[in-house]
Amino acid sequence: MIRAAIVGATGIVGQQFLVALKDHPWIEVTALAASERSAGRRYKQAITDASSGAMRWFCEEPPVEEVMEMPVQNATEMNVSTVDIVFSAIESAPAKILEPKFAVDRPVISTASAFRYDDDVPILIPGINSEHSRVLQVQRKSRGWKGFITPIPNCTTAGLVITLKPIYETFGLNAVVMTSMQAMSGAGRSPGVLGLDILDNVIPFIPGEEEKVQRETQKILGSFEGSSISPAKFDLSCTCTRVNVREGHTESVFASTQKTCDVEDIARAMREFAGSSEETNLPSAPKHMIIVHEDPFRPQPRLDRDADNGMATVVGRIRKDAVLENGIKYLLVSHNTKMGAAKGAVLVAELLIRDGYIS
Amino acid sequence: MIRAAIVGATGIVGQQFLVALKDHPWIEVTALAASERSAGRRYKQAITDASSGAMRWFCEEPPVEEVMEMPVQNATEMNVSTVDIVFSAIESAPAKILEPKFAVDRPVISTASAFRYDDDVPILIPGINSEHSRVLQVQRKSRGWKGFITPIPNCTTAGLVITLKPIYETFGLNAVVMTSMQAMSGAGRSPGVLGLDILDNVIPFIPGEEEKVQRETQKILGSFEGSSISPAKFDLSCTCTRVNVREGHTESVFASTQKTCDVEDIARAMREFAGSSEETNLPSAPKHMIIVHEDPFRPQPRLDRDADNGMATVVGRIRKDAVLENGIKYLLVSHNTKMGAAKGAVLVAELLIRDGYIS
Amino acid sequence: MIRAAIVGATGIVGQQFLVALKDHPWIEVTALAASERSAGRRYKQAITDASSGAMRWFCEEPPVEEVMEMPVQNATEMNVSTVDIVFSAIESAPAKILEPKFAVDRPVISTASAFRYDDDVPILIPGINSEHSRVLQVQRKSRGWKGFITPIPNCTTAGLVITLKPIYETFGLNAVVMTSMQAMSGAGRSPGVLGLDILDNVIPFIPGEEEKVQRETQKILGSFEGSSISPAKFDLSCTCTRVNVREGHTESVFASTQKTCDVEDIARAMREFAGSSEETNLPSAPKHMIIVHEDPFRPQPRLDRDADNGMATVVGRIRKDAVLENGIKYLLVSHNTKMGAAKGAVLVAELLIRDGYIS
Amino acid sequence: MIRAAIVGATGIVGQQFLVALKDHPWIEVTALAASERSAGRRYKQAITDASSGAMRWFCEEPPVEEVMEMPVQNATEMNVSTVDIVFSAIESAPAKILEPKFAVDRPVISTASAFRYDDDVPILIPGINSEHSRVLQVQRKSRGWKGFITPIPNCTTAGLVITLKPIYETFGLNAVVMTSMQAMSGAGRSPGVLGLDILDNVIPFIPGEEEKVQRETQKILGSFEGSSISPAKFDLSCTCTRVNVREGHTESVFASTQKTCDVEDIARAMREFAGSSEETNLPSAPKHMIIVHEDPFRPQPRLDRDADNGMATVVGRIRKDAVLENGIKYLLVSHNTKMGAAKGAVLVAELLIRDGYIS
Repeated sequence: MIRAAIVGATGIVGQQFLVALKDHPWIEVTALAASERSAGRRYKQAITDASSGAMRWFCEEPPVEEVMEMPVQNATEMNVSTVDIVFSAIESAPAKILEPKFAVDRPVISTASAFRYDDDVPILIPGINSEHSRVLQVQRKSRGWKGFITPIPNCTTAGLVITLKPIYETFGLNAVVMTSMQAMSGAGRSPGVLGLDILDNVIPFIPGEEEKVQRETQKILGSFEGSSISPAKFDLSCTCTRVNVREGHTESVFASTQKTCDVEDIARAMREFAGSSEETNLPSAPKHMIIVHEDPFRPQPRLDRDADNGMATVVGRIRKDAVLENGIKYLLVSHNTKMGAAKGAVLVAELLIRDGYIS
Repeated sequence: MIRAAIVGATGIVGQQFLVALKDHPWIEVTALAASERSAGRRYKQAITDASSGAMRWFCEEPPVEEVMEMPVQNATEMNVSTVDIVFSAIESAPAKILEPKFAVDRPVISTASAFRYDDDVPILIPGINSEHSRVLQVQRKSRGWKGFITPIPNCTTAGLVITLKPIYETFGLNAVVMTSMQAMSGAGRSPGVLGLDILDNVIPFIPGEEEKVQRETQKILGSFEGSSISPAKFDLSCTCTRVNVREGHTESVFASTQKTCDVEDIARAMREFAGSSEETNLPSAPKHMIIVHEDPFRPQPRLDRDADNGMATVVGRIRKDAVLENGIKYLLVSHNTKMGAAKGAVLVAELLIRDGYIS
Repeated sequence: MIRAAIVGATGIVGQQFLVALKDHPWIEVTALAASERSAGRRYKQAITDASSGAMRWFCEEPPVEEVMEMPVQNATEMNVSTVDIVFSAIESAPAKILEPKFAVDRPVISTASAFRYDDDVPILIPGINSEHSRVLQVQRKSRGWKGFITPIPNCTTAGLVITLKPIYETFGLNAVVMTSMQAMSGAGRSPGVLGLDILDNVIPFIPGEEEKVQRETQKILGSFEGSSISPAKFDLSCTCTRVNVREGHTESVFASTQKTCDVEDIARAMREFAGSSEETNLPSAPKHMIIVHEDPFRPQPRLDRDADNGMATVVGRIRKDAVLENGIKYLLVSHNTKMGAAKGAVLVAELLIRDGYIS
Repeated sequence: MIRAAIVGATGIVGQQFLVALKDHPWIEVTALAASERSAGRRYKQAITDASSGAMRWFCEEPPVEEVMEMPVQNATEMNVSTVDIVFSAIESAPAKILEPKFAVDRPVISTASAFRYDDDVPILIPGINSEHSRVLQVQRKSRGWKGFITPIPNCTTAGLVITLKPIYETFGLNAVVMTSMQAMSGAGRSPGVLGLDILDNVIPFIPGEEEKVQRETQKILGSFEGSSISPAKFDLSCTCTRVNVREGHTESVFASTQKTCDVEDIARAMREFAGSSEETNLPSAPKHMIIVHEDPFRPQPRLDRDADNGMATVVGRIRKDAVLENGIKYLLVSHNTKMGAAKGAVLVAELLIRDGYIS
């Protein structure tokens, strides 16, 4: 078994890692780390409010009993030599400092954006750009690390790039225009989205989000040439909003393809797309990377976010678009805290274990 | 005073007409009509549930006391000779039959879509395309009516076309891509949107809506030439969704202009745009047709829908867009049941009274 | 295998029966019936909207593939001789007419209230008042039926009476005061609760609900004496409201016991209560009839409604009450469409199969 | 004009004070204070997020232009000699320290609970217990202050005690059992209620709330005898929950009266109750302290919270209760951030100005 540490284990993403790794066939959680406040306590104690007795467990799934008595270490002082891999579930600012320290010795798979845009850092989605893992060898060499850092994409990028991949491969892409309607869980809990602000409302701005989606999508669809990734050469513009939904980002996509294609061509390309057969055999991989609905009332976040355990991207309403050259349009729903966060990171770990990057 | 009949007076749009006309300086409600079920009863009785005593009044504003004792006529048998104008708040199917009967003798201003796409029927928004009222003379002549039918646009069209107007006039338009996040009130109450379906959800399809927005926007921005309107010649593509908001449609707009322009040019054109001075003096007209925010967290439907009594369209996040030629993008909020419904229709009546079409 | 017909199979409760009976070890669905509109069509066709292609499937669980090709019969003409049991998921008015017709030949288990208050009709909750099934023999005899009708309680009654049972048994009850905060799914879909009405709101009245809860609770806790049930002799008063929750009724209970008892006594009585061992072995029975939380922020409908597959009632905040004699107070959450509807009815069927009433 | 300082002016309650005092006929805001972080800045600057340009204005009403350029002082160092009254909108912990410092020289009207339970401190609601203002003279004397501290009640207490007052006066009270369904705004914004937690949910616990309601209700209905207030002698028990509503607390009340009375008696007593005529003439007073509905679907928080500008308490569903001695039950809606917070405090100031306590 691969031994894993969860850094940021008491937060919402850390807890999602615990759920994603419960009963995992290849990986077991053997170390937990969090901020100084939690350090030195048992996990259960660390997430229990002393005054009210309330447990600060944020996932829909029940608390993971296996780790309740595990001690929580101070993340800034953690020695990673007793684990084989580090899952980092911390904010970008501390990630900037802590992840390189861990990567000196061990592979780090991160949900933070701190290193996503560095040239020698891939943003991996198994089945979409698995071959980008080769950049990790460049990174190890250039940074002199035994380990490496590999972040997953922003949760809004994930669904978009997964659905664009078969279009890009089969018909080429000129341009993409996207408007997102994102779930509250993407904002986390500190401070997160207040009920007062989102009830009966749409919030039209998520700071930094649009820039992330634009850069990451081009990088993930880019090609690995020699020692780095050349971003894909198509234009991308988006507007990201927040709606009163718990989980599951909805995205309205308009795309211009290079080759002419009709609605059926796009639907077929998406349905046939499954990544290489190796990726779909990974333990956390969805049976179908993309599920395409005919019912025009789908996808809906509440009905479709949990498809294939939250790892599939669900598409509907594929139509011709009259504005863009060779234009098509569709909607997608992607589970922002499953494929778009901890479970997506576990899937990356599985790919890297299979391919010998982690052992 | 102009005497008005409200047809469909017991429904939600009919009640919005009653609110919009309460204490109106030029128009008074002197007749009410509804379906056979309500005919022959006092208005209060017609909207009160006999078994529970509950009043079926659907507006946020309090019930309009002035009409509570007014008798409700059967819409299919109503004689319009005692009024000067008919406001029609009925569904499209009955509108198709009843509105022409009324228009033989009297002007009909309608929220229904039944006649919107006929060549001799304008879709008026005072201050945007007031000059299209001249089509009404063509209509009268060709149909041999003393009155006429003039529908207002779909509620989703209204905000879009109002914000596009100053762009179109100043810089020209090549193309528009829009994704809407529409409020539940747009769906009415029969059956309307179930709480079960919209809670924690986005519904990605509103039957017929996208086609309406596309046709109406081009028609409203079109030019009146001789005896009919030539639709404006730019491409338009949209995706319309429903979100868990009571009132106020939010729209994410991407537009390609003919002339180059920057963000400040667009903001200035919108701010300076006010329709001609005559329109802004109409009793129901907003002080500003468009309000532009600098705060990137605006517009929000709950905070901005009631701007200028729900008659202004509120815009924010004007930015350059990298995908479209001379691309810009922004968000807007428009009150779908004020400017987008009964109050918008009352504003049309005011324009036509001022210009001598109704007397 | 016991062969079952679902009457009202296309509605929301009917679909919940299909989900509850999928892969059931003892019962298989062999017949479906609905209104004349659906009769003669395959089930899939009957629940698919012809114009849009949308499937009218209302459960969170995926559509039950096994019945998609099954023909739908006209409920008013159904011959029940080919099945062993009828599950009735129809409204009270048609139930009044149809259920006695079915009961002439076959046992009918119903979610409708039509016969709940008849003297020879028990309202069964296995583990709470299983012994009331003996009333069915009285019913058969007095009505001259081979079958019988046995309804389940109202969904709001279920959670209340389950939590009162161990209190009543151990300490006796003088009086109960209850305020409910009920989920929207309890109102069904025709017309159900409009999003417009419930967003940012509480609706303080559910017609008929309070009377049902009061009568049913006393009847269920009553004693079977000779040939009929004597209602339990304690006072009960409630106020039932609707809140913006999808599933799971929350109830705030204040109770006066006959014997003095403290908080720990009540918690222990609830925890130890499990119905007789036979009942907890039934296939659909919860592992624990009642789950008691120490965390004062529980129970919450979203977190607790699915406990033991929606069949457990979850209790928290047990405290002393200063107003009532020997007063205690607590909150409960009960899944109104699992234990409170179809799954609760299936549990009744299991009890009656085990005890030889159905074969 | 009475000159007022707002302490805690940048928070949500402070902003509600600014709205409540805009264009006030007797009181003008001449000083603002907040925490050290805001001190020394203009108000507009203090509530504007430097990085995004977003304005942190939390009220539905537009920002109060009159104070935008006013300097914000450091609350811990504020000299109150330039104002005639201090409105305190801070949390209880700092209130414990700061309010006595202000009260040495000036009257302090507070929304904090810090001093509510002190014997020489009244909890005033004009029209309910105006005569308790005489305790302020005791307070001044015993503490040697020129000013005084007078807090308003908890927002949940306000609606309950206002509706109990006419019952208590006319029929006497033995006992009250209450379950509240409280709005999110009662929890403020730091941290407030997360959208993630309240969507599709009810939260069954509000720490400290139930104890406050119980003590305050008895104190407010108590009698002033000699130098202190004797709490009213009836039992009170409540359960306080949070629901997904922005503003407006709903309370389900069950009460036992000393004298027998029927539903009409209670409704009449509430309708006739209006406080003394002097109180109803105060500028912020509601026209009716209590509004009673016959429609069983009222009160609803969204429809009734703004009655009489949020200063009336709205009652409905008055019925007999079978459990309590001389039992009656009803529901009420009260605006927790109007009558229950800043506007309620302004109303207290008006009473004390009229009666010569403030000048």
